[in-house]
Amino acid sequence: MITIRDVAKQAGVSVATVSRVLNNASSSEKARKAVQSAVEKLGYSPNANAQALALPTTDTIGVVVTDVTDAFFAILVKAVDQVASSYNKTILIGIGYHNAEKERNAIDTLLRKRCSCLVVHSKALSDEELANYLEQVPGMVIINRSIQGYEHRCVSLDNQRGTFLATETLIRLGHKRIGYIGSNHHINDEEERRQGYIQALQHHRLPQIDDAIIQSSPDFEGGEEAMIKLLSYHSDLTAVVAYNDSMAAGALSVLNENNINVPRQFSIIGFDDMPISRYLIPKLTTIRYPIDLMANYAARLALSLVNEGIETPLHAQFNPTVVRRFSTENCNNP
Amino acid sequence: MITIRDVAKQAGVSVATVSRVLNNASSSEKARKAVQSAVEKLGYSPNANAQALALPTTDTIGVVVTDVTDAFFAILVKAVDQVASSYNKTILIGIGYHNAEKERNAIDTLLRKRCSCLVVHSKALSDEELANYLEQVPGMVIINRSIQGYEHRCVSLDNQRGTFLATETLIRLGHKRIGYIGSNHHINDEEERRQGYIQALQHHRLPQIDDAIIQSSPDFEGGEEAMIKLLSYHSDLTAVVAYNDSMAAGALSVLNENNINVPRQFSIIGFDDMPISRYLIPKLTTIRYPIDLMANYAARLALSLVNEGIETPLHAQFNPTVVRRFSTENCNNP
Repeated sequence: MITIRDVAKQAGVSVATVSRVLNNASSSEKARKAVQSAVEKLGYSPNANAQALALPTTDTIGVVVTDVTDAFFAILVKAVDQVASSYNKTILIGIGYHNAEKERNAIDTLLRKRCSCLVVHSKALSDEELANYLEQVPGMVIINRSIQGYEHRCVSLDNQRGTFLATETLIRLGHKRIGYIGSNHHINDEEERRQGYIQALQHHRLPQIDDAIIQSSPDFEGGEEAMIKLLSYHSDLTAVVAYNDSMAAGALSVLNENNINVPRQFSIIGFDDMPISRYLIPKLTTIRYPIDLMANYAARLALSLVNEGIETPLHAQFNPTVVRRFSTENCNNP
Repeated sequence: MITIRDVAKQAGVSVATVSRVLNNASSSEKARKAVQSAVEKLGYSPNANAQALALPTTDTIGVVVTDVTDAFFAILVKAVDQVASSYNKTILIGIGYHNAEKERNAIDTLLRKRCSCLVVHSKALSDEELANYLEQVPGMVIINRSIQGYEHRCVSLDNQRGTFLATETLIRLGHKRIGYIGSNHHINDEEERRQGYIQALQHHRLPQIDDAIIQSSPDFEGGEEAMIKLLSYHSDLTAVVAYNDSMAAGALSVLNENNINVPRQFSIIGFDDMPISRYLIPKLTTIRYPIDLMANYAARLALSLVNEGIETPLHAQFNPTVVRRFSTENCNNP
């Protein structure tokens, strides 16, 4: 077949120059002309590079997430990708790491790459900056956050209700001394989830216990660290609510190493219902965060905003629900 | 501030038209002119859309992976992203799902988006097609596969050596009746890993046991299913080698439900050393697949191929190693 080398030879330029031209990188007009005529003369198979000049703009959904190594965001991305595929579109993903500059960078890169359709998970950018983007990018939808004036283009869940349900699940099992393992990231999710825990204790007239709220990194190691602190401070806790399933997994591991049987002696409930919650022994009781359904909705909404042919999905309300597995049991030490 | 609405009003067109123009979507030359002059007249803050015409080509590394919900690929993506950030570049990710059309689609989308620098994980495309891409895209690097004639642009690991080490680890602990839980995906990784297991048995003069190789989906559920079959067929296996850590986790869960103590009565070893291997109880002995190091190398190599300023990294050889945790013990039933 005809290769880039043949083109370079025919055009009398280097392979690197041909590649620059095909990639529309900086190159002299002379080189560009020579390469293009060589491409035509040799009938060089037009690959995607050559097609770059005729660029569709709604063929791709851009997705911005915090960190794909977190299953929550991986599931979000996969759900958007499934919607995209069903419309014969593809996705491009940018990563923001809860960092304002990186989030801005990820959004701008996707816009520079001409994604007119975006599903954005942003925690570090201000409401004002996101409102500005929403104003300038008609096809942008925000997930897991609500921006005033753009609620119809935001898809979020009631975090506080989720931990309220989690805490109430333990209270209904007779637990009265319940700790909370939270995230040390400065994002609204943590504030909302902690408030849900506190609100449930108040609602059921249970006193808050000093030093029963421990914050750490929202991952397995952070859960281990937080559970060790809780055990160091308290000998009488009978249950704990975790910010997410990874932290619950870390806590579970510490309880096991300390020969504290879950659920017989201690109950633990997670949040998100990630795959890991089914890998654990015992399988974890948790709060289902329907991120797959929410991302599916967000993707269809974003597409409908820039494709006259695609119908706006009916506005859906998304709620957290309890998934009862085997890490929670009646308190036998009331 | 000046909004897209102001531009639409000034240009006498709809907001949708302005957005189409800014996104370089199909729009009449008349509309384009009107919008562009309105943008200039109003000094509409040039957002990333407006900058799309002046498009750099090596500012972004494109990454193609199979499925970000698999931690292996999430770690690959994160490692590439860290290299990109260190060069003030960003990444864009496409997903291929071990499907030839989707893999091709993902690569072509990134090329259309003018990523001249690609790190590609492809299992479904033929060697010929990948060789063709490698020929036409000077900045493409293949990870976890070797293409003849392009070995210097491929980064892979010896899978067979990995399961050989895993099986030998069990043999050295006195296990003689060892099963293998494999993947039912038709990719070379499975063939290589299964051969490593068989080779180790032969090397140590242990007979292969009938029906001791079970293949299923390479995930938690597949591991459960495969382990149930192994227990149904055999009462005398004392250990199992798993294709990956997720399958090992599923197998572990089945053994636990059957009151078979790991590692006292049964040993299990995984593959990949994903985070999950540290979440399990007992923590999983596994084979470390240095995908983070390999992806870091692949990203630096890809950048060096299209940026004269960036040095080609020294070619590194990557090897699997044993990570001994608590799911393997001496066979007490030799």
